[in-house]
Amino acid sequence: MILIHGGVVLTMEPDQPAITNGAVAVEGPDIVAVGGYAELSQRYPTAQVLGSTHHWVLPGLVNAHHHGGWAGGCYRIGFVDRPLERLLLYLYNTCLASGQGDMAHPNTLWLNAQLIRSGVTCTADFYYGDGSEPYLGAEHGLRAYQESGLRVAFMLSARNQPSVDNGDLDLFMHLFPPEVKPQAQALSLNYNVISQEQFVTAWKRVYRDFKDDLINIFIGPDGPTRCTPEFLQNIKALAQEFATGVQIHALETKYQMLHGRREHGTSLVKYLAGLDFLGPEISLAHAIWLTAEDMDLLAETGTSISHNPSSNLRLFDGIAPVREMLARGVNVGLGTDSMGFSDDNNFVEEMRLALLLQRTPGIDGRALSGQTVLEMATINGARALGLGDKIGSLKPGKRADVITLASEGMLSPYMNPLHPPQEVFCQRARREDVRDVLVNGRVVMRDGELTTIEVGAVQATLREWFDRLWAERGAQEQAVVKTLADIEAVITDFFRQYDHEVIPTHYIYNTY
Amino acid sequence: MILIHGGVVLTMEPDQPAITNGAVAVEGPDIVAVGGYAELSQRYPTAQVLGSTHHWVLPGLVNAHHHGGWAGGCYRIGFVDRPLERLLLYLYNTCLASGQGDMAHPNTLWLNAQLIRSGVTCTADFYYGDGSEPYLGAEHGLRAYQESGLRVAFMLSARNQPSVDNGDLDLFMHLFPPEVKPQAQALSLNYNVISQEQFVTAWKRVYRDFKDDLINIFIGPDGPTRCTPEFLQNIKALAQEFATGVQIHALETKYQMLHGRREHGTSLVKYLAGLDFLGPEISLAHAIWLTAEDMDLLAETGTSISHNPSSNLRLFDGIAPVREMLARGVNVGLGTDSMGFSDDNNFVEEMRLALLLQRTPGIDGRALSGQTVLEMATINGARALGLGDKIGSLKPGKRADVITLASEGMLSPYMNPLHPPQEVFCQRARREDVRDVLVNGRVVMRDGELTTIEVGAVQATLREWFDRLWAERGAQEQAVVKTLADIEAVITDFFRQYDHEVIPTHYIYNTY
Repeated sequence: MILIHGGVVLTMEPDQPAITNGAVAVEGPDIVAVGGYAELSQRYPTAQVLGSTHHWVLPGLVNAHHHGGWAGGCYRIGFVDRPLERLLLYLYNTCLASGQGDMAHPNTLWLNAQLIRSGVTCTADFYYGDGSEPYLGAEHGLRAYQESGLRVAFMLSARNQPSVDNGDLDLFMHLFPPEVKPQAQALSLNYNVISQEQFVTAWKRVYRDFKDDLINIFIGPDGPTRCTPEFLQNIKALAQEFATGVQIHALETKYQMLHGRREHGTSLVKYLAGLDFLGPEISLAHAIWLTAEDMDLLAETGTSISHNPSSNLRLFDGIAPVREMLARGVNVGLGTDSMGFSDDNNFVEEMRLALLLQRTPGIDGRALSGQTVLEMATINGARALGLGDKIGSLKPGKRADVITLASEGMLSPYMNPLHPPQEVFCQRARREDVRDVLVNGRVVMRDGELTTIEVGAVQATLREWFDRLWAERGAQEQAVVKTLADIEAVITDFFRQYDHEVIPTHYIYNTY
Repeated sequence: MILIHGGVVLTMEPDQPAITNGAVAVEGPDIVAVGGYAELSQRYPTAQVLGSTHHWVLPGLVNAHHHGGWAGGCYRIGFVDRPLERLLLYLYNTCLASGQGDMAHPNTLWLNAQLIRSGVTCTADFYYGDGSEPYLGAEHGLRAYQESGLRVAFMLSARNQPSVDNGDLDLFMHLFPPEVKPQAQALSLNYNVISQEQFVTAWKRVYRDFKDDLINIFIGPDGPTRCTPEFLQNIKALAQEFATGVQIHALETKYQMLHGRREHGTSLVKYLAGLDFLGPEISLAHAIWLTAEDMDLLAETGTSISHNPSSNLRLFDGIAPVREMLARGVNVGLGTDSMGFSDDNNFVEEMRLALLLQRTPGIDGRALSGQTVLEMATINGARALGLGDKIGSLKPGKRADVITLASEGMLSPYMNPLHPPQEVFCQRARREDVRDVLVNGRVVMRDGELTTIEVGAVQATLREWFDRLWAERGAQEQAVVKTLADIEAVITDFFRQYDHEVIPTHYIYNTY
């Protein structure tokens, strides 16, 4: 039995105000009571106590979109931030990106450590495997979750066609001038493409062998233009058969919107609706470039969005109209996309950026409240991952995914007592304030020390491996990069065709 | 003699590439040499060494707009972020805002500690005094700088008219319904208004008694709509007489643009140009809502801008079109406005937000480079404060304002060797990485420990003082806040008149 004590307890249960000097009682994996500390410490006199009146207690944060495996942490292995359509070329073809196989294990552990440190107790992991049998490489990432104890919605990813020209790569190749075409064909524009049969067989194996109370096995079709309609429909059927969830990248860039419209003759959301590919088991990652009608469709069907503000800025995607989405009733969670503000998956920073980016100019001060951002970061994220009845708020019967933060930093040197703690948290909390992290009742960080991950050893393994890879292949890298730049120029030109389109906006941020 | 050693040294001198395994030699207040570590450690064998190959060395960061004194740190003393026109009402009238007099001293020290910790060696301080003789209260803030050793461009602030209706407060009062008017008149809409004579006399005293090599005494007219034209012209003449600088708030909100145009019949920048109130000694704080023509005028006259991205988001001001400003040749520095991203004046975070906010959607990937953001944070800021020949880059003959950062965090678990260090710094450095801070050759932080400020004692003083104030006056606060809300509604209505105006934009961030 553990009693988690806080000067402030934010349960995130609907309409429940902050509890002053409260506590959460945890027995095994479950929350058994939430209330005043005085009463609960009397009721459970032998419980181990975490926290104090100088801590705040919240439900664990939920990262609703993220990439573990080898793809997580792109920047450090060489992908200078670029518009997504150009970035993918580097992601598939540069030297250090080939960190597949075994290395996905320490890389995922490293990312898990970053997430736990910033208060995340459950993460989506949109996982790109290496295609190897029997699990398409998923086992490397999954082993990391088994070890770290982080709760995960593990979305094994697949695409069954390249992402341009309705999958017709030959057609796309006609764009390339003769001197570039051979290199373009030699390099991978075709990454991760897999047949439906191979994917479904492997996915079922992963589900059978890894699914447990902490590890949820989801399906991750890569995007509406990267999968055939039949594939999407079969994935939806598969999800329903296994009562699991689906996440899909959608409308991350304005080019996805404009090019998608050309390929499908309608908005991508309407296209998905036409395939019956919307619903409460489905979440869209990014979904920046939506029409109001699209948003209404998502709200009606109970489809969620994962909002990724840092990644959206870093990759030149734009700012998602989150106020508008919420006003129209869409469930919006929050994610780092392994592309956080400081390139370190600091989820607290992600919350802050989500808070501040929606403050468009205007005397009426339209904004997301701290309460709303906290909801996005907890209960909304849980709902987006189909876990709204298990986690996302502090309530007897839910799983004990709980965090404490030292309040000293947030309140220094003084804090006006009239400020609601939800606002103070979103404006002022820092990763370093997070002290204790419990997942399913297990302490995975205690007073700032990770209990399940040896970060030093993980770092040494990764560094040694990358150093060796660079020693072996770094010299060739500049030639590859030169070729990629030629191909990139063609891709850039291709998408420029859409730049003349006038796009009406939800929000205006600046002038003249 | 001190030798500051870094695996990477970024001098920020024009066209000078990063120095690998370099060093900066410091003698007294000056930089005497910059070069390879091997050579310099031979030349100066007895020098004390700071840093190592696991550190990076940069010029100290320059915070080009900030408020010390009692006004710095608004959030914690009760001003929930609001659109500026509404915020000011609370700033002038709520209980804890009356922290003037002596308390400006520990408050400024606290802010100085935050700035030093994040690598700032020189800050602007747009200082609101309390009007008391002989220095208008400036002595409290200035004492903090004398103690902390931080370099400052101390801008003693003044306005000689209220900010609405060309200073005609009676006219503005006609807006208020009868039941609100008496309270509105009783409360201060008129804060800090001072006669020109009183201000100039006090300013000259401050200059005479406090100016030294570290403390630069500037003039801070509050804004073009808060000062009469004659006052602005006299301030410019005063600045020229004393060969010092001037900073002025300008075009922070779209309402300043639209209302200013109505009051002056032209853009505020053109209005200032007409008063001959532009030039290299002048910097505009914020300056978001500029036309292209305004930018050209600033570039032609050598007028600088301080860009404050966090504050601009927090107070619903918008996103300044910085790429456009730079393209047109305007010198743009960077400032926290004591309204940083996490409400703690973390200048490294401010740089990151400046970097990422300018990435508007588009396949061409238009962005500020890390190099450009570093220039804004160093040499451009120095120029904006008239100190470009003294600080802002590492060069023999300049003052020794130098910082070191531990590179481990930026490079963990690995960093592609092809990434330029300028990009790595701007994307990945964190405040905690800053280890040593030298101002004018004096070590004010050594390996993360402040040497001039006892932060614990300062915090205790501030907390005790605020606690006492709240005990005395907190109970009345809710009545005051209710009255302010009534007045705020009238002010909001007044500015709504401008909301129908269609404003063409530089940048688009989102859709439909």
